[in-house]
Amino acid sequence: MVAGSDDHGIYPVATGRAAETVQEHQHPQDLVLYAGWFCPFVHRAWITLEEKGIPYQYKEVNPYKDKEKHFLDINPKGLVPAIEYKGKSLYESLILCEFFEDAFPEHKPHILPEDSFDRAQVRLWTDHVAKQIVPAFIRTVMAQEPKEQEHHLEEFYRVLGTLAESVRGPYFLGEQFTLVDIALVPWVVRDFVLAENRGYSREAVGQKWKEYAKRLESRESVVRTQSDKKHYAEFYGQYLRNEAQGAMAKAIRAGRPI
Amino acid sequence: MVAGSDDHGIYPVATGRAAETVQEHQHPQDLVLYAGWFCPFVHRAWITLEEKGIPYQYKEVNPYKDKEKHFLDINPKGLVPAIEYKGKSLYESLILCEFFEDAFPEHKPHILPEDSFDRAQVRLWTDHVAKQIVPAFIRTVMAQEPKEQEHHLEEFYRVLGTLAESVRGPYFLGEQFTLVDIALVPWVVRDFVLAENRGYSREAVGQKWKEYAKRLESRESVVRTQSDKKHYAEFYGQYLRNEAQGAMAKAIRAGRPI
Repeated sequence: MVAGSDDHGIYPVATGRAAETVQEHQHPQDLVLYAGWFCPFVHRAWITLEEKGIPYQYKEVNPYKDKEKHFLDINPKGLVPAIEYKGKSLYESLILCEFFEDAFPEHKPHILPEDSFDRAQVRLWTDHVAKQIVPAFIRTVMAQEPKEQEHHLEEFYRVLGTLAESVRGPYFLGEQFTLVDIALVPWVVRDFVLAENRGYSREAVGQKWKEYAKRLESRESVVRTQSDKKHYAEFYGQYLRNEAQGAMAKAIRAGRPI
Repeated sequence: MVAGSDDHGIYPVATGRAAETVQEHQHPQDLVLYAGWFCPFVHRAWITLEEKGIPYQYKEVNPYKDKEKHFLDINPKGLVPAIEYKGKSLYESLILCEFFEDAFPEHKPHILPEDSFDRAQVRLWTDHVAKQIVPAFIRTVMAQEPKEQEHHLEEFYRVLGTLAESVRGPYFLGEQFTLVDIALVPWVVRDFVLAENRGYSREAVGQKWKEYAKRLESRESVVRTQSDKKHYAEFYGQYLRNEAQGAMAKAIRAGRPI
């Protein structure tokens, strides 16, 4: 999720294992994923496609720069992830994940459980990730004053801890890898940014979190969509200096929903 | 959605048509709705139950005052709406609405469309209601300075206008009354608060909005769950004076997700 015209310095393409996956998804398909390799929100949709083995064509878009007319027709907000499918377009990462589940029921594994109560639990905790964990992560990254960094890091620990307590293991809901795991894992993959710059450690959240985080980042669909650490680090440089101008950075500064 | 210990002056029970509906739902049932007649978030869940004719027992809870242990066991956050169903508990208005759809598939009408693309559209616009319309409404109510009131009212008009443009009619998605309509209608029912205190008018949004709003508030399930206007007005008094201490008011002041 990024939009804005004056961001810069984003490496133009996926690297590492993600580059191989991009390479394998260049052929035209009914479903086109408009993506940015660096974007954690894209990562959710991309993991879901990989997880379910849905045929898709990957198109890299730098939403800061090349807002081609066709892309803006698909998503007037100019945000990634967005998809085009059978002449229609759609965006918003979590809605895309639910759409993949709905529109491709024959593609397994399912990321929502069968039981309606469990499904509600998945939605409740996905909401916790979206409303509590992700904003706390970004605030900690963007905070400049040590006091402020400490305050946001504490909140990040607190909201991670709340979730960690509810992990049934090995994944959030148990054996099934669900939308909660998918909603969360892009920030697990990127938490080294906080470790290297803000004093975060997985140990400080607790042993249960540490093991769960490890399991999430080792999931095949996550590994296959991961770029080189150094490029993520480079991307987060502008957030760490509070210079980012993307929609997310602006929302956080304005105290508005992401 | 309210929590906090020092709010006061809330009329203790539903009135008008809502009081009759409460009266009809006093018998023990598998599903218990913990509700506050005044709460727009409760209203969503309640409308969905009425809409689908799901058997439920209505229990009035004043989340500002009588936080009985049993209620806190059900929802540790102490927020309404919450439900108890077959020994399990659940909360969060939109998640409850989806749960009612999932757990009672034989109860019609469905509030989510069959088509997966339409379903994604419903989720996208429900998100717009939750992230844009509801916060703009509350900010306009809580703003004290005329300049600030005007600023928030303009934003409220803008986000309503965006939605209004996409209304297919008679309801948001067409003939089917869906989650978008349910997510939105509690604030339509309460928009007289803005009309009487902040210079809002439905006409100013446009004819399409005016007709759609009228249709929403005339829906039988909405009428049956509506209390007397004067008690809603009384409830909003503390928000209009920016004295409210509920979770929603605090979130808005802190620039945090509701």
